[in-house]
Amino acid sequence: MTQPGAATKIVLPESEIPTRWYNILADMPSPPDPPLHPGTKQPPAPEDLAPLFPMDLIEQEVSGQRYFDIPEPVRDVYRLWRPTPLYRAHRLERALGTPARIYYKYEGTSPAGSHKPNTSVAQAYYNRRAGITRLTTETGAGQWGSALAFAARQFDLEIRVYMVKVSYEQKPYRRLMIETWGGEVVSSPSRLTASGRRILEDDPDSPGSLGIAISEAVEEAAGRKDTNYSLGSVLNHVLLHQTVIGQEAQKQFALVGDYPDVVIACCGGGSNFGGLAFPFLHDRFTGNAPKAARVVAAEPAACPTLTRGVYAYDFGDTAGLTPLMKMYTLGHGFIPPGIHAGGLRYHGDSPIVSKLVRDGHVQAQAYSQVGVFEAAVQFARTEGIIPAPESAHAVKGAVEEALAAKAEGTPRTILFGLSGHGHFDLAAYDQYLRGRLQDYEYPAEMVEKALADLPVVPGA
Amino acid sequence: MTQPGAATKIVLPESEIPTRWYNILADMPSPPDPPLHPGTKQPPAPEDLAPLFPMDLIEQEVSGQRYFDIPEPVRDVYRLWRPTPLYRAHRLERALGTPARIYYKYEGTSPAGSHKPNTSVAQAYYNRRAGITRLTTETGAGQWGSALAFAARQFDLEIRVYMVKVSYEQKPYRRLMIETWGGEVVSSPSRLTASGRRILEDDPDSPGSLGIAISEAVEEAAGRKDTNYSLGSVLNHVLLHQTVIGQEAQKQFALVGDYPDVVIACCGGGSNFGGLAFPFLHDRFTGNAPKAARVVAAEPAACPTLTRGVYAYDFGDTAGLTPLMKMYTLGHGFIPPGIHAGGLRYHGDSPIVSKLVRDGHVQAQAYSQVGVFEAAVQFARTEGIIPAPESAHAVKGAVEEALAAKAEGTPRTILFGLSGHGHFDLAAYDQYLRGRLQDYEYPAEMVEKALADLPVVPGA
Repeated sequence: MTQPGAATKIVLPESEIPTRWYNILADMPSPPDPPLHPGTKQPPAPEDLAPLFPMDLIEQEVSGQRYFDIPEPVRDVYRLWRPTPLYRAHRLERALGTPARIYYKYEGTSPAGSHKPNTSVAQAYYNRRAGITRLTTETGAGQWGSALAFAARQFDLEIRVYMVKVSYEQKPYRRLMIETWGGEVVSSPSRLTASGRRILEDDPDSPGSLGIAISEAVEEAAGRKDTNYSLGSVLNHVLLHQTVIGQEAQKQFALVGDYPDVVIACCGGGSNFGGLAFPFLHDRFTGNAPKAARVVAAEPAACPTLTRGVYAYDFGDTAGLTPLMKMYTLGHGFIPPGIHAGGLRYHGDSPIVSKLVRDGHVQAQAYSQVGVFEAAVQFARTEGIIPAPESAHAVKGAVEEALAAKAEGTPRTILFGLSGHGHFDLAAYDQYLRGRLQDYEYPAEMVEKALADLPVVPGA
Repeated sequence: MTQPGAATKIVLPESEIPTRWYNILADMPSPPDPPLHPGTKQPPAPEDLAPLFPMDLIEQEVSGQRYFDIPEPVRDVYRLWRPTPLYRAHRLERALGTPARIYYKYEGTSPAGSHKPNTSVAQAYYNRRAGITRLTTETGAGQWGSALAFAARQFDLEIRVYMVKVSYEQKPYRRLMIETWGGEVVSSPSRLTASGRRILEDDPDSPGSLGIAISEAVEEAAGRKDTNYSLGSVLNHVLLHQTVIGQEAQKQFALVGDYPDVVIACCGGGSNFGGLAFPFLHDRFTGNAPKAARVVAAEPAACPTLTRGVYAYDFGDTAGLTPLMKMYTLGHGFIPPGIHAGGLRYHGDSPIVSKLVRDGHVQAQAYSQVGVFEAAVQFARTEGIIPAPESAHAVKGAVEEALAAKAEGTPRTILFGLSGHGHFDLAAYDQYLRGRLQDYEYPAEMVEKALADLPVVPGA
């Protein structure tokens, strides 16, 4: 179907959309520690999560079952953009003069323009099946909110998105996408919830934060029987749904008779990273592949969770309301500098990804903002696609690998995840091109201060 | 490869990218009248065009040869996004309750997000081959400028884009795309050209216009040996390059064993329309297909060139500098109301498309703005993709056809062209959703006034 070596774009027919999601918990040599209830410090029972999530998702969250069948209505929505293309970056290779073969898996062809709909569609489906008619969620710049609004519409769910006020006012485009798909967007903090009103009483001009928006969305969902809450990363079931990415990439590599030596993806909460990497880690854990790929998580130097954080129990949110998760964290009170890769500005990380890094199965690598944009512009000028700032961290990782191959004079096969396009991030490119983009030092003092606030978990 | 009937997305491997462009001049029952030199009123000789265009493109402009081979370096760039998907709009069909089968050919997966790179890549290639190192062009909101900047970068050409000042200031996103790809953007009117300086002397605060920007781009190209000018629509060679769209669609229909009864595309200068429709008209002219498709050009009621214009010789630009073209026109002095479908705000139309309408081979249909956005939102909420306002005119046409099929109780196969995404047009959706979008009456008086200025061509 495609000529090995010569192909630019390796495509699959929609019959090749994966039929099941892969659960890496079944194959990890050592499983992650369980989450803990913030009061009792005991693992939460499924019932504790039932006010927020449908039972199907709670089961996927805790199960050790290796595969979950993808329901046909979910695969049917996936058909709108899946399988996504795997590209061979011939032009970037030539520009770098590298002996490496560089491939990228491009998730920007989804209606929302990123990998996020892989899980938003699944979550909307399971909620609908459980009789839920409304969803709430939070969003920063709007990537997750728009992905969930698209999915909610496909299953006739209403949706309310609490959008951080400063983004609501300064970045209207993803808000308009949410509204075009029929979703409701509320500037957070709002007067619709007790949490919001409390903040506004203290500071009527509060710019909001992701932590506040989470509190509002959770409060509303917990208080209404018809309404559930939906989260776009970090949790096990979210990473599970994203594994369609890596599974497709494996089929595409088989078509051209190649296999990656190294797999690189950007990592914020971990869902994009897990989606691409876990199927390749499965190959490694089971010896089920021509070679064992090295796996790299790329993160921003300004929010270096995996490379500079501590591995400990911490809250998932800023306010300290969520279950405690064992993960790499910079402290739940840490507020990262305002880099443009908003999706990577998270103090913690997926417990599964954290454990894989802890045990040496995954390498983490941090990159500074200016170098990341330099790589992104080189990529845009050779391959055409303008990457999202988050995805640009993986571009940077791939360029570094390709230059190392050149310096060593040894070819290798590099796969990276291009998780989305940068159509709504052009202001950041503008700053870079005008030399106005800045790097941030490792925020050592802020991290130290935040880590001093870690919750105490006896025996952990 | 795909299951007939069940498929959502009919994809082709890149080996199926067409190997030649189709020239409808070879098959038209009656050819269009030739362009005329504005001074002599005689057809221009190829040499007259040589200061602006390379000989390969001039030959394609005037030739009656049925096919032109697509050079391999052009096909190689096409591989970055071609073949584009043909979608079956199952969800839109269900929402409309229509017995019709609706298909759409989606060109928004190109790096620039529209069909425009199909010709910009070809034009950049031929200019490079002719030893040209710089290109100039004009752009309004930036669709064409960004497509040409992407293409210029692929063939190491410099590019300067004269961008209408009001767009330069109010719509920065496509300007930033051009710059990200390495192009230079100049606010027009500028002090770089005599035409620009003349305008600024009269009115230092001139908001600019497409006509002024064309004058500046042409003036610079005509005055420099290393520099040519590039145009994004209207001309025969531009429509020729776009025929990869319709040729791919034909292969995709063959894969699922279907064929359109009606083909609908939006029409501004005519390149998107011609690209999709001409291969199907070829089938009709040669009897080379299971049936003869009806072909519809969708245009805005606010700029109803094909439905309310006159068929006459007129200038292609506002200033009256270009050759005279026999076409439907609202008068070169006509300034269309400020609808959001900027790409359809053109007083004239392709001479080939005009002749096909004149001779009854193509039907033209005009739609008002509010109804067009209503269809676009219904499309976005069912199919996911948010259409460009231009493309939304074809969506509206398809919806009307599907509702007619429902009213008549007769199934039919509808194909429409979704020429681009609306990621940079969300402000227009915002206005629609808030009830602030307005329709414009047919601007009868303005048209009457403009038509009084038509150039006099003896005997035409």
